[in-house]
Amino acid sequence: MPLNPEEKWPQYVVIVGCGRLGSLLAGLLSNAGSSVVVIDLEESAFDLLPVEFSGFRIVGDAVEIEVLQTAKTHRADCLLAVTEEDNVNLMVAQVALKVFQVPKVLARVFDPRREEVYREFGIETVSPTNLMADAFLASLVPGKET
Amino acid sequence: MPLNPEEKWPQYVVIVGCGRLGSLLAGLLSNAGSSVVVIDLEESAFDLLPVEFSGFRIVGDAVEIEVLQTAKTHRADCLLAVTEEDNVNLMVAQVALKVFQVPKVLARVFDPRREEVYREFGIETVSPTNLMADAFLASLVPGKET
Repeated sequence: MPLNPEEKWPQYVVIVGCGRLGSLLAGLLSNAGSSVVVIDLEESAFDLLPVEFSGFRIVGDAVEIEVLQTAKTHRADCLLAVTEEDNVNLMVAQVALKVFQVPKVLARVFDPRREEVYREFGIETVSPTNLMADAFLASLVPGKET
Repeated sequence: MPLNPEEKWPQYVVIVGCGRLGSLLAGLLSNAGSSVVVIDLEESAFDLLPVEFSGFRIVGDAVEIEVLQTAKTHRADCLLAVTEEDNVNLMVAQVALKVFQVPKVLARVFDPRREEVYREFGIETVSPTNLMADAFLASLVPGKET
């Protein structure tokens, strides 16, 4: 699913977590013309990036403020916190919003019960659990098939 | 998000894997009037089920055919394979389809590259990675916000 380059994709994007989701988003946004920086604890995580990925890679713990500084997070139009850890995503998203004043901060939250906490802090969340449940249920009801 | 009980939800549903997604689906379908059997390796997984869940719980490995027999899978209108393991989901879904002739079989697949393999076997798949990427991208583009 290549992105439509006519859309106004963010110019500068910081992605924290280079797992399946992070690497997919990094590749798509990079192809659509965004400048992308990906941060992960493990160098080997970057193996998931598509070969055509033209952004930057930073090995480090994004919970440390220096790592976000190195990624020039203060210039980011958008930060996506998509590690496997809800706690890490919450902390990084808060720092991006409050310390670096990133205008758009999105976080993955596995535990749907924690979404409210995030929202109170002004962080947009996306929960795979809820999304998946909706998708499963949609294909169970005849006439609602996707 | 309670389900609309007016919709024609499946009468008898077997759910393999009682993690966040499995327990959420089990609760919603049970509330909507479906008979639900949930299978998990760990008894403690059932703690995630909502208190109002009125279905059955089976502790066992759904890769073993006896466990699916105990769950009366041959009578199921639908089987949802939603463990954390793509391999387990693939195997259970195939057995449900071919051995127990379950008319509707859905499996969660974390690795989007494996979806094609599933589809060749007639198994519908839902990938959290793709769903999440779509959700993130939708909220990055102004005017596409959800």
